Amino acid sequence: MNQAFRQCQNLMVTGANRGLGLQIVESLVLGGFSPGKIIATARNPEAAKELQRLAEEHCNIHIIKLDVTSQESIEKATCEVEKLVQEEGLNCLINNAGINVVADLDTVTADKMLENFHTNSVAPLMLTKALLPLLKRAAAKGTGMGIHRAAVINMSSLLGSVELYWGVRANTFKWYPYRASKSALNMITRCLAVDLKEDGVLCIALHPGWVRTDMGGPEAPLSTEDSIASVLSVIGGLTEKDHGSFLHYAGKKLPW
Amino acid sequence: MNQAFRQCQNLMVTGANRGLGLQIVESLVLGGFSPGKIIATARNPEAAKELQRLAEEHCNIHIIKLDVTSQESIEKATCEVEKLVQEEGLNCLINNAGINVVADLDTVTADKMLENFHTNSVAPLMLTKALLPLLKRAAAKGTGMGIHRAAVINMSSLLGSVELYWGVRANTFKWYPYRASKSALNMITRCLAVDLKEDGVLCIALHPGWVRTDMGGPEAPLSTEDSIASVLSVIGGLTEKDHGSFLHYAGKKLPW
Repeated sequence: MNQAFRQCQNLMVTGANRGLGLQIVESLVLGGFSPGKIIATARNPEAAKELQRLAEEHCNIHIIKLDVTSQESIEKATCEVEKLVQEEGLNCLINNAGINVVADLDTVTADKMLENFHTNSVAPLMLTKALLPLLKRAAAKGTGMGIHRAAVINMSSLLGSVELYWGVRANTFKWYPYRASKSALNMITRCLAVDLKEDGVLCIALHPGWVRTDMGGPEAPLSTEDSIASVLSVIGGLTEKDHGSFLHYAGKKLPW
Repeated sequence: MNQAFRQCQNLMVTGANRGLGLQIVESLVLGGFSPGKIIATARNPEAAKELQRLAEEHCNIHIIKLDVTSQESIEKATCEVEKLVQEEGLNCLINNAGINVVADLDTVTADKMLENFHTNSVAPLMLTKALLPLLKRAAAKGTGMGIHRAAVINMSSLLGSVELYWGVRANTFKWYPYRASKSALNMITRCLAVDLKEDGVLCIALHPGWVRTDMGGPEAPLSTEDSIASVLSVIGGLTEKDHGSFLHYAGKKLPW
């Protein structure tokens, strides 16, 4: 856990019931992210047994119920986050919750497209907007850019890169809803980066790699531990030069 | 009107009741696009007086009622298109219909985002999918790539370029729904390009310029006539090398 994480007081991660979200929480506490608060959200906290177990062992993990596609739920969760972070504000929001509504050209429908846009593109925007006062509160206390101050990390995907979906990478993962939702999330990240620069809130889109999760499947090359070790290293090392960019989990910039 | 348009038998353009769509129809007939059929769609053909007037003067203009956000309407329109094009198939589909649900970070809502995604990103995909048998029918008769064979032209926007929304272009047109919808459309265009390459159906995203339409506003630098003169020149000149790319109305490639 690097220096930036020691200066990050409050961090929030969505979709922490399983997969990469859960691994972020676990890697943070095992890496000594303490006494900073980790706010971990799940649609159904009751069903998130592994997350509950972690929270019982580590008192700095706070589980909040959040359905990112519900504005009512976003507003309720924001109130709870405010009570937790108080005057410190929120230093880091990781918009990790996401779904893959698998559909190729034969099976795609308007509803499948819109469902994936809602969860993967629109929800991160609406949650960031709701939490903006808390991010700005944290940003007002610091200088420079990074998670020591305030940052929004949008979990995107290399599959959202239009540029890279060509040549040798063409004809793989023909997922219209997922790819389009991540491209849209990349644009939303860029829009947020433009709008939040003055406030000192760093915004990036991050590709966590192809990981052995429920979404990534068993043939993926990366374990959740290895992916998140790299992801946290990148997040911890973010500075002004990364603002508004699309980063690979190994740190290099990706084309849009 | 160049050689490719003379070899293009049937062309369809959505949102032809006004703005760029109407101008495409007008410029085509004035440029001598004949005897090829121009299939012009509008949500409310009864209200499209200018288009009706053009159709009365030019018997190769066929007006079809189409609400691109309704699957039922798409299927009904597809049947009508099939009756018109018959064994020739459809050579060129211009997905022009689009809206700008104006909203910045302060005013954006989930509903505004989803409304813009539906019309600007999802609808062109669903319409292309429905018309695919007719596009493939035309493509089966030709060789090479271009509108002499079969092509899908998605009207995108430079505002959908994530790469270009930075530096000197930042802090202009802070339209979250519109920008995200066009980025998503660009990815959808790329997905279609990957999937339809084998069938010989050319797919591109095209930026028509900032034009004095109801959407572009009165301070835009381009007239609809000038924009569409360039747009038609680009469309007429498309070849295999353009497949899967994002083109400026002057013909150069744009970054995603």
